[in-house]
Amino acid sequence: MSEKPSVLRETNDEARRLARTLLRSARSAALAVLEPGENGFPFVSRTLIGIDTDGTPVILVSNLSTHTQALAADNRCSLLVGDIGKGDPLAHPRLTVQCAAEKVEREHDRHAGLRERFLRRHPKAELYIDFPDFAFFRLTPQRASLNGGFGRAYLLDGDDLLIVSPAIADLAAMESRAIEHMNSDHADAATRYTQTFCKATGDGWTICGIDAAGLDLALGDQLKRLEFNETLQSVSELRPLLVRLYG
Amino acid sequence: MSEKPSVLRETNDEARRLARTLLRSARSAALAVLEPGENGFPFVSRTLIGIDTDGTPVILVSNLSTHTQALAADNRCSLLVGDIGKGDPLAHPRLTVQCAAEKVEREHDRHAGLRERFLRRHPKAELYIDFPDFAFFRLTPQRASLNGGFGRAYLLDGDDLLIVSPAIADLAAMESRAIEHMNSDHADAATRYTQTFCKATGDGWTICGIDAAGLDLALGDQLKRLEFNETLQSVSELRPLLVRLYG
Repeated sequence: MSEKPSVLRETNDEARRLARTLLRSARSAALAVLEPGENGFPFVSRTLIGIDTDGTPVILVSNLSTHTQALAADNRCSLLVGDIGKGDPLAHPRLTVQCAAEKVEREHDRHAGLRERFLRRHPKAELYIDFPDFAFFRLTPQRASLNGGFGRAYLLDGDDLLIVSPAIADLAAMESRAIEHMNSDHADAATRYTQTFCKATGDGWTICGIDAAGLDLALGDQLKRLEFNETLQSVSELRPLLVRLYG
Repeated sequence: MSEKPSVLRETNDEARRLARTLLRSARSAALAVLEPGENGFPFVSRTLIGIDTDGTPVILVSNLSTHTQALAADNRCSLLVGDIGKGDPLAHPRLTVQCAAEKVEREHDRHAGLRERFLRRHPKAELYIDFPDFAFFRLTPQRASLNGGFGRAYLLDGDDLLIVSPAIADLAAMESRAIEHMNSDHADAATRYTQTFCKATGDGWTICGIDAAGLDLALGDQLKRLEFNETLQSVSELRPLLVRLYG
């Protein structure tokens, strides 16, 4: 990318953290695919997104839709995340992620977990999540492009967006119980986390996701991501960390 | 598209009007292109958009950016517009437009007019609009896909999004003066139009665009589109229409 010396910056941990936070706090994304039967014409539409416990973005789509038919023919796709917010739409950070899509069949051992995580993030998807024409696709990041606002552009590797830890499976196995426990027995914790670490306001936040790299926090339409400073290496590290973050 | 009988509806004037309103009231869009040098990998990013007086969407982009380099290599692109708003992101209408992009050179006779229209819509673009690496592209719609919310999908022709009238050039020639006159001598009119016809609230709306098919109305970050019931056929129809709409 030597032709872009004036806009690209050297990718650092701050950029990686911003990119992960943008991706993991997105409720929806613009999804670009290659239009089926149109000789590779690009096609962009909107989808809900979730995140698997290894950081892989996940979409739930109907096979009646153009984007799903496109992915069946060519699995290359691109996600754009990052809310527009107030003021100039280009002043807000956003992330483009180049992905390889793979359908998750219902009998796949990750399907039940994905379904549960997705529904905690998008409760209204319960209306159609089990329709026979709907399916999950995992979109494995190949590389990404972060635009942190004017003049702040960074290139990232796909691996920069993944969560790597020996604790992923164990955390996934206890995620639902841990969330239920926190939201019922420590109901103020999510609001405290969100206000302290995510620059958010409002009461009544709940935890809707726990993985080795952070917490997903929800209040109505809002979704925030608290990235841990260090990825958990075992399930036993979760409780002391949550206590420490509570302050 | 006979494989989609259950989701596609017959395109009617209401759908066309919704599609036009979505496109013409968008401040920014997700733009999908084919990533240069990556064998046609789709790539989606965010751009500001404007609308030319014939309804053609227009983007202002830097040739240092991936999307501009992509369009130079393959001019096919796809725009997604439609705000997310509150609640379920998929409950809000959005429009995908398949376009052919064409760069507008500075010496082109539409350049000055485009620049003026774009700046009225995006005043902050004045900071960089004249930078040598920035250029306008007109994105001529080829076809479009409207999703009006769950189960309300429509296909449109590119022509459905264009403005056709013998009055386009004459209106463009007097647009700036007419806007200045309305916003200074009839300062309450824009607010009245917006509240009456665009389901908007707030005071201090101004007109930021007038063309043969409608008005663009702005207040801070908000942009609304008032589509006329009938396209103007001559400049002389504008004043009586504005008086009638005032009520």
